[in-house]
Amino acid sequence: MATKKKYTIGIDIGGTNMKAILFDGEKILSDYSLGTPKDNLEHFLVMLQALIEPLLTKAEELKIKVEGVGLGVAGWLNQEGEILMSPNLPLLNKTKIGELLAERIEIPVKIENDANCFVLAEALQGAGKKYESVYGITVGTGIGGGWCLEGKIFKTKWSGSGEPGHVVVNYAEGLRLEEAYQKLTQNNPSQLAEEAYRGDVLADKSFEEFGFLLGTSLANLINLIAPEIIILGGGVIEASDLFFNSARKSMKEFIISEEAKKNIKLVKSKLGNNAGAIGAALLPFYQ
Amino acid sequence: MATKKKYTIGIDIGGTNMKAILFDGEKILSDYSLGTPKDNLEHFLVMLQALIEPLLTKAEELKIKVEGVGLGVAGWLNQEGEILMSPNLPLLNKTKIGELLAERIEIPVKIENDANCFVLAEALQGAGKKYESVYGITVGTGIGGGWCLEGKIFKTKWSGSGEPGHVVVNYAEGLRLEEAYQKLTQNNPSQLAEEAYRGDVLADKSFEEFGFLLGTSLANLINLIAPEIIILGGGVIEASDLFFNSARKSMKEFIISEEAKKNIKLVKSKLGNNAGAIGAALLPFYQ
Repeated sequence: MATKKKYTIGIDIGGTNMKAILFDGEKILSDYSLGTPKDNLEHFLVMLQALIEPLLTKAEELKIKVEGVGLGVAGWLNQEGEILMSPNLPLLNKTKIGELLAERIEIPVKIENDANCFVLAEALQGAGKKYESVYGITVGTGIGGGWCLEGKIFKTKWSGSGEPGHVVVNYAEGLRLEEAYQKLTQNNPSQLAEEAYRGDVLADKSFEEFGFLLGTSLANLINLIAPEIIILGGGVIEASDLFFNSARKSMKEFIISEEAKKNIKLVKSKLGNNAGAIGAALLPFYQ
Repeated sequence: MATKKKYTIGIDIGGTNMKAILFDGEKILSDYSLGTPKDNLEHFLVMLQALIEPLLTKAEELKIKVEGVGLGVAGWLNQEGEILMSPNLPLLNKTKIGELLAERIEIPVKIENDANCFVLAEALQGAGKKYESVYGITVGTGIGGGWCLEGKIFKTKWSGSGEPGHVVVNYAEGLRLEEAYQKLTQNNPSQLAEEAYRGDVLADKSFEEFGFLLGTSLANLINLIAPEIIILGGGVIEASDLFFNSARKSMKEFIISEEAKKNIKLVKSKLGNNAGAIGAALLPFYQ
């Protein structure tokens, strides 16, 4: 790591809100949030600039230079930074939003999948800090995931791969983890998470069932690539205790290696809601 | 790669035969085989020396120096080169056969799992030569597998992990790929492969069914880590055409990424029966 501090802005673009932070490589100096525009690309870009503006002003006050901006966005990206498909924000489909923003603000911009930002932040500065091979899974409106190996996001050659949600969990029915998740949460995970949080037994039960499937998928991940630690993030993690416990239980059940079973860590996110923005802020200099 | 040739001996220790080759980094200069002793460790070591002897003599004739020996063996190894569990050769359990051999022949010895040797050989000199991310699967008496990333065998931290045969293919029943394979081949894959090879329809059918499961597992592998090419080896590959075709079909069916579906290669081993010994011969200088 460089001894001199590098200042960046990290932006986590969610389906509802966008959050930006001014980051010094270790801590958040300032943050700002806005609702995510969903009407058109031009408006989206204007609001993105409006989101960054107060942080650039803050940077001026502090007499520091923002050397890079990182964007985390839900969706499949290709190696040129083009968003091929964003499930939450179709207005971003087929755009190079990073390039468009860089032209406007005249600061280099890096863009990455949001689950990759999550795992990068947790691997470098969160729950995975002490480990070389860190896998992150986010369970929110959908299932995201990414792998950080020796401090670098593991990149697959093809966009749309490297996604734990795509894993088939029922071969007979060809059911994928993501589909099972939507099915068990009746296509409304956020509402069900809220119900579970409020103590609804049936909602909790659905997450418990999904926890079983997720845990088995995690065991398969361990049987194949054996990360040292798996970090779970996203709203659902906090909403249902049954979910986490059931995931851990079925994970342990299906791991073959005794060594792996003994040593693998399954933990909750340490950086919480900030993980995505911190990961984005780390993109310019740590990837 | 070094410009000066490095000479090594590679040994593929199978459940029935052991094969050794004298290798110049590119081609096999000489080879020798012996039956695999199964009685005790002392006899095993004597026979291993007897296997190497003619190749050392050959090297002397050719006035070349053997600078390293590589051993490929079925089983789980830890990072210290200890064999924790060998399914075919229990006499090797809890031994450091590489160290024991090195003491006797006074040449450095490296040891590795046989499926890892297979994929190393295919990645560096076989069907995977042009690719950075190569996955190999061997289908023989059991299911083995390994991943070669940028010319290096991908090592998991824990022994007994990194095995595609351990992957659960039926979550409801908790059935693993390896177990499904044994079940479908009635615990005698070699005999069934022979029957399939001779045209037995029922035997062929069993392999076709297994091909479906394997293909789905390969799709999951692609959905998770997206190797560029998957290379299948082992006796069964040649025994049943239905097997390979059915694996390819279900693999394609369950890949999500369109780019991956279009570009992923599923091919048969190029180095055939020599892949294991060549991979072992590559261990001393290319790992």
